[in-house]
Amino acid sequence: MAVYTDVSDDDLRAFAALYDIGEVLSCKGIAEGIENSNFLVTTERGNFILTLYEKRVAPKDLPFFIALMEHLARHGVACPTPVPGRDGIALRELCGRPAAIVTFLAGMWPRRILPFHCAALGRALAALHRAGASFRMTRGNDLAVAGWRSLFESCQTRAAEVQPGLAEELGAELVLLETVWPRDLPMGIIHADLFPDNVFFRDRELSGLIDFYFACTDFLAYDLAICLNAWCFEADGSFNVTKARLLLDGYRRERPLAPAELAALPVLARGSALRFLLTRLFDWLNPPAGALVRPKDPLEYLRKLRFHRAITGPGGYGLDV
Amino acid sequence: MAVYTDVSDDDLRAFAALYDIGEVLSCKGIAEGIENSNFLVTTERGNFILTLYEKRVAPKDLPFFIALMEHLARHGVACPTPVPGRDGIALRELCGRPAAIVTFLAGMWPRRILPFHCAALGRALAALHRAGASFRMTRGNDLAVAGWRSLFESCQTRAAEVQPGLAEELGAELVLLETVWPRDLPMGIIHADLFPDNVFFRDRELSGLIDFYFACTDFLAYDLAICLNAWCFEADGSFNVTKARLLLDGYRRERPLAPAELAALPVLARGSALRFLLTRLFDWLNPPAGALVRPKDPLEYLRKLRFHRAITGPGGYGLDV
Repeated sequence: MAVYTDVSDDDLRAFAALYDIGEVLSCKGIAEGIENSNFLVTTERGNFILTLYEKRVAPKDLPFFIALMEHLARHGVACPTPVPGRDGIALRELCGRPAAIVTFLAGMWPRRILPFHCAALGRALAALHRAGASFRMTRGNDLAVAGWRSLFESCQTRAAEVQPGLAEELGAELVLLETVWPRDLPMGIIHADLFPDNVFFRDRELSGLIDFYFACTDFLAYDLAICLNAWCFEADGSFNVTKARLLLDGYRRERPLAPAELAALPVLARGSALRFLLTRLFDWLNPPAGALVRPKDPLEYLRKLRFHRAITGPGGYGLDV
Repeated sequence: MAVYTDVSDDDLRAFAALYDIGEVLSCKGIAEGIENSNFLVTTERGNFILTLYEKRVAPKDLPFFIALMEHLARHGVACPTPVPGRDGIALRELCGRPAAIVTFLAGMWPRRILPFHCAALGRALAALHRAGASFRMTRGNDLAVAGWRSLFESCQTRAAEVQPGLAEELGAELVLLETVWPRDLPMGIIHADLFPDNVFFRDRELSGLIDFYFACTDFLAYDLAICLNAWCFEADGSFNVTKARLLLDGYRRERPLAPAELAALPVLARGSALRFLLTRLFDWLNPPAGALVRPKDPLEYLRKLRFHRAITGPGGYGLDV
């Protein structure tokens, strides 16, 4: 639950007057998300989302994110579309923060993941990757393999506070992943944070994807590996191979996976598990001041990492390759 | 910022099906309020507020609050109206909590209080009191003078952690207020918590009042005293007598104040200051677990209390009686 910045009625009215969205009737801070301050703004024309970008989003990256959402929406991906002001500009400043208004997306994110969610997710992820292929901007992934070591080193000395031996286990995993990480898989725009709270459904239909503020240029199959971790484990830690198969098969219906991508899945899934483990560990050891957010359990991702270590090929994810 | 209970998409869909409000398109937790969990629910028919009543609201009081909002709305007060289900029932259960859907009220609460806000507030408060006169249910005020001593005693031993000598000062004030507290002023339904975040404006027009979960039966003029404290002090602690005069004059245009009510204002304002000081002190010393809310500064109300001690009659509030 995060609203870091309070927007006054006066400031909001002045800001909204720069847009062609009608009179603002209401503005409520949304108790979701961690990185930014989000408000549901109701105007005479309907609902919009106002986002104030807080310090964890680099201002230099915002033009990329805004242009990406515009591009994806134009290419048929159901996602929030930045609303330009009367001057044509979508990104401006409010309360000393970069700010943008985006369209409101109907739907709710699923709390209890059922197999059909994973099938729909796979198809939507592949469609996102295809639509991203014609997007001309790029953005490196700060949280890819090259970024994990510095993150690890910043947590290393205190990792044992969370679990004895954790630093040693992660250090060994990191060395291995740095060695075997793939070098030439198909690349493109990835969402990089497609957890259930970023995927909306209306009844059984996927209605859209949100929160593109980790999007970057990386291996497309890495996005699938992130989803395997985020969607296919049960609350008790067990891996649901039916969900994994539906996710991967849904994806392959829209975009075939090359043999090298399939073969790399276990390593990519280990890398994805390590990435979320490290960022959660960092937040656990360094809770952001004023965030009013409960840090997520890093050890959930240690259990996932260990699971993927035992997988030797895509058959472990239910695929009959 | 408070959302204590997460409502799943499945639970919400099943709940909403009991109402004639159309398909739920979205549900966002609202990062405002302290006592309850509030969600902005968008359906095909528009926006609604879903409230889950958390433990600080006594379930036995809920029928009173629901009936009061229905009564006030029917008598022309702009306030949320409980939406009954298809079975005619407005109060039911969701996620193990009492829950209700109320209508959405357009408007934003003013962060920077200007004199015109106080004039409009006075008129709306008097209109609320008049509309309440025909409401047949009653509810005692747990936080009236009879309730302050137990609150004080629960904080007494630790009050010095907040300010040395605080327990002695509050103890003396309490003895005095218990002695001089009025006994026969006009009574009726009061809101009892009409702070700026509970009063919505559209541009310069007051558009409605929300959050009736402290409403009770008490001296009508005590509601005015609460508003004097909540609306007429500047951030630097100074008392804005222009705002006070506009508040009281606005009120008197809709409901005349008897001489005894006017004479009692300084004592009522001291009592109101003590009441909020004590509840804030309690919350400061006993932060509710999992509230994710920054406790409010109790000493703000000590300064207000001291101000009112120096007032000898309604002239101190700008009235030319």
